[in-house]
Amino acid sequence: MKVAKFGGSSVANGTQIKKVAEIIKQDQKRKFVVVSAPGKRYADDVKITDLLIAMGETYIKGEQYEGYYADVLARFKEIINELELDLALYAEIEKSIKTVLTEDLPDGMKLDRIKALGEDNSAKIVSSYLCKIGLNARYINPKEAGIIVSDDPGNAQILPESFDKIYQLRDVDGILVIPGFFGYTKEGKLVTFSRGGSDITGAIIAAGVKAEMYENFTDVNSVYTVNPAIVNNPKEISVLTYREMRELSYAGFSVFHDEALIPAIKEKIPICIKNTNNPKAKGTFVVAERELDDHVVSGIASDSGFVIIYVSKYLMNREIGFGRKLLQILEDERISFEHAPSGIDDMSVIIRERNLPPEKEEIVLRRIKEELHPDTVSLQRGIALIMVVGEGLVNTIGVAKQAVSAISNAKINIEMINQGSSEVSMMFGIKEEDLEPAVRSLYQSFFE
Amino acid sequence: MKVAKFGGSSVANGTQIKKVAEIIKQDQKRKFVVVSAPGKRYADDVKITDLLIAMGETYIKGEQYEGYYADVLARFKEIINELELDLALYAEIEKSIKTVLTEDLPDGMKLDRIKALGEDNSAKIVSSYLCKIGLNARYINPKEAGIIVSDDPGNAQILPESFDKIYQLRDVDGILVIPGFFGYTKEGKLVTFSRGGSDITGAIIAAGVKAEMYENFTDVNSVYTVNPAIVNNPKEISVLTYREMRELSYAGFSVFHDEALIPAIKEKIPICIKNTNNPKAKGTFVVAERELDDHVVSGIASDSGFVIIYVSKYLMNREIGFGRKLLQILEDERISFEHAPSGIDDMSVIIRERNLPPEKEEIVLRRIKEELHPDTVSLQRGIALIMVVGEGLVNTIGVAKQAVSAISNAKINIEMINQGSSEVSMMFGIKEEDLEPAVRSLYQSFFE
Repeated sequence: MKVAKFGGSSVANGTQIKKVAEIIKQDQKRKFVVVSAPGKRYADDVKITDLLIAMGETYIKGEQYEGYYADVLARFKEIINELELDLALYAEIEKSIKTVLTEDLPDGMKLDRIKALGEDNSAKIVSSYLCKIGLNARYINPKEAGIIVSDDPGNAQILPESFDKIYQLRDVDGILVIPGFFGYTKEGKLVTFSRGGSDITGAIIAAGVKAEMYENFTDVNSVYTVNPAIVNNPKEISVLTYREMRELSYAGFSVFHDEALIPAIKEKIPICIKNTNNPKAKGTFVVAERELDDHVVSGIASDSGFVIIYVSKYLMNREIGFGRKLLQILEDERISFEHAPSGIDDMSVIIRERNLPPEKEEIVLRRIKEELHPDTVSLQRGIALIMVVGEGLVNTIGVAKQAVSAISNAKINIEMINQGSSEVSMMFGIKEEDLEPAVRSLYQSFFE
Repeated sequence: MKVAKFGGSSVANGTQIKKVAEIIKQDQKRKFVVVSAPGKRYADDVKITDLLIAMGETYIKGEQYEGYYADVLARFKEIINELELDLALYAEIEKSIKTVLTEDLPDGMKLDRIKALGEDNSAKIVSSYLCKIGLNARYINPKEAGIIVSDDPGNAQILPESFDKIYQLRDVDGILVIPGFFGYTKEGKLVTFSRGGSDITGAIIAAGVKAEMYENFTDVNSVYTVNPAIVNNPKEISVLTYREMRELSYAGFSVFHDEALIPAIKEKIPICIKNTNNPKAKGTFVVAERELDDHVVSGIASDSGFVIIYVSKYLMNREIGFGRKLLQILEDERISFEHAPSGIDDMSVIIRERNLPPEKEEIVLRRIKEELHPDTVSLQRGIALIMVVGEGLVNTIGVAKQAVSAISNAKINIEMINQGSSEVSMMFGIKEEDLEPAVRSLYQSFFE
C-alpha cells in the first residue's frame, strides 16, 4: 500500500486534478490519497489557503471580508465546473464555508477551522471526481482517520495514540482521500498543523498504515544536485538518504518541509518525490540507507542571509563554562543559532539574519561584553553557507580537498570550514557575493 | 631596559651561571634578571624544585626527609664551589632551608615557603656571582620588588596594585636579580605561582617596569616551525605574534607557559626567546603585530590524546538550548572541553583524554542520553589535532586548499576541519596513527 500526497499545484484546477486521478488509476497500491488545498494556477496566482486566511482575519476584525469570500467560492466553482461534478457538491462547499464563518467560536478556533476549509473541500472534490471516473473512492475526515493532535492551533503535534487507529484504515474498502493540514484534539476540536502541513498529514498516514511507500507529488521531476537557479539543467538525484535530504533542505533545497517527514522517517518508510505533470519521470527516492556508489557527493546546497558573531578571549579554553554561557545568552534572548564552531581562544556563532534583528543584536553584543569579558567581539553580516552533502563523505579521503580546491580555484576566500561534526556534510562559509561562483565551481568539480 | 629571565637549565650549575653572567654583561640594558631554581644538569637529573617538594612533603608527613635535604644542600654547595663564591653564602642558604623546615607554620604555608627556596637561593647565588665579576648587582626579594599576590597557595594571582610599585624598580641602582615563582600577599605571606611560575614573574616584572623587551633564556635557539621530533632540522621562526604563539603552544609547542605571558602581553612587551648556550643565535621574537611577508603560515603544531563525543539529533538546530545543555552537562561534571564544532543536526565536543577518565565518560554519556534524548551518541578516542598557524591566514585564498591537499596527498582521512573560528589557525582532526605523516606532509608543503 502506498500513500500519495498531492501538493497545492497538483490540485490547483480541474486539469491538474484530472492528472492526479490518472496517477491514482495507474497504480492500485495508491490506496491513501492526501491532498493540499488548491494552490497557484500560474506564478502570480493566490493560493486558496491565503484567500481563506485573509477572509478569516478580516471577518474576525469586522472588516470587509466579502471579496475574499467570493474569490474562494469562485475558485471552488471553477474546479467543480471544469471537472463536471454535481453542483450539489458546490452547494455543500458553500455551506461549509458559511457555517464556519458565522459559527459562534473563539477567534483562534475559528481561524483554524477556516484555514482547514481549503484542504477539506479539496479532498471532497478529488474523491468525487475519482468516483465519477469509476474508482471506488471516498472522502475521509481526519477525525474519522484517527489523526488526534495536541491543542496547539497552527502548530498541532500528532499524539502517539493516533497511529494504531490510523493502521485500521488499511481495512477500509476503496481509495481513501484525506485532507491534509489538520487534525482533531481528543475533545474533538479542529486544529491545524504548521504551514505546509499537508506533508505532515501524508507522513502521519504513511507511518500509521505502515505504507510501503510515501509518494510526494509536486511540480518538479526530482530533487536536483544543485539549485537550478544557479546552475542550468543540473543533474537529478535518484536516491538520497533521509539525513542527506535533511542537510540539503536545510540550506535552500525547499522540496518539502523536513520537520513534516519525522513520522515517516521514524518508521523508515521510503519516500518518493514525483512530478504530477510528468509522472513517468523516476523522481527521487529518499530512504533510510543507500548503497555507496562512485558518487560520494549527492548534492550541493546553499543559502544566504547568515550572520557570524565572533568572540575571542585569551585562554578561553581554560575557562570552564565559557561556551555554555555564550549559548545561554542566546537562549535567554530566544535566539536559535545554526552552528557554533569554536577554536582555542575563539568561538563563533552562526545565526540566521532574520533571527537576529538589530535590537536583539545590540542586547546580545552588550551581554556578551558585560558577562563574558571577552578580548574582542565582532559581528559579520552577509554570510552565505554552502553544504556539500553525501553519505560516506566522512570516510572518503580527498573529498575535502576537492571541495576546498573548487572554491579556491574560483578565487574565493573561505571564511569558515566546518567538516567532521556531521558525517554526511561539509559546510563552508563565504561572503554572499561569492555564493554563485563558488556553487558553480563546486558543481563542475563534483558533477561534470 | 630589558628583563632577562633564565630558566632552570640556565642556572643548573656553575658553568651555566657563568654563561648567564656573560650574557648580562654583554648588554647594559639587561637591568632586571629573573631566575628559576637550578634545573637538570643532564637528562636524568632531578630539579632542585622537585627535591624541595619531596623534602617538604616527607617532612610534613613525618617521614624520612633527610636524604632530600642533603641532596638539596649538595646541589647548592656544588654551584657555590664551582663559582668560587664566599662560603658564608652557603651557610646562609643552609640556614634559610633549616629555618623554613622547622618553623611552626600551617602545612600549606610551609610547603609554599619550601618550594620557593630554589628560586630564592638561586637569585642570591646569581647576584653574588655578578658582583664577584665586578657588576653592580643585587638580590631583590619579591616583597621588596612589589609582587603582591592573592592568597592561593600554588596558584597565586598577581594583584593590579603591584605594577605601580614594580615600576619604581626602574630607579633602583644596578642590576636587580629577582627570584621567580613566588610573591607575597598583602599580609606578607609567601605564596607560589603555578608550576613554571618563573615565567610569570618575568612577565610581571617586564609589564611593571614597562620593559622594552622581555628576554626568555632557555636551551633552544628558537621556536621551530614544527616539532623537531617529527621533522629533522626544521626551519626556525624569527617572528611570531602573541596569538600565533598561543595557538602553537596549545598543540605541543612547550617553549613556555602561555598563561604566564598574560601580564607582558597586556602591556604589549616584545618577548624574545633565546638560548643561554648560544646567545648569538637570533632567537624568536614574539610581538603584538608582525608584518605579513610571503610566509602566511608560521608553524605547524600537533598534539595527540584527544577524544571526540558526537551527538546527533534530527532537527537539533531548531531546538533552542540543545547546545547549551550539552555544554552544561560537561560544566556540571567539571570537564573542560577544547572545541565544540556543531553541524545542523550534529554537535561534537573535543576533550583531552586526560580530562575524561572512564568513570566521567560513563556519567557524561548517560546524562547526554537521558537529558537530551539524542538519536545517537558516540565517542572516539585516539584523535590527534594539527594546527596550521599563521597571521593573515584568514584572508589568504588557497591556504586551506594547500593544507587539505597536503594531508590528503599523504592518503590520510581528515576526521575534522575547523577553520574560520580562529583568525590565525586552521585545525584538523585525524587519527593518532596518521599524525606524523600528516605533519611531515604539511611541513613539506608549507616550508620546503
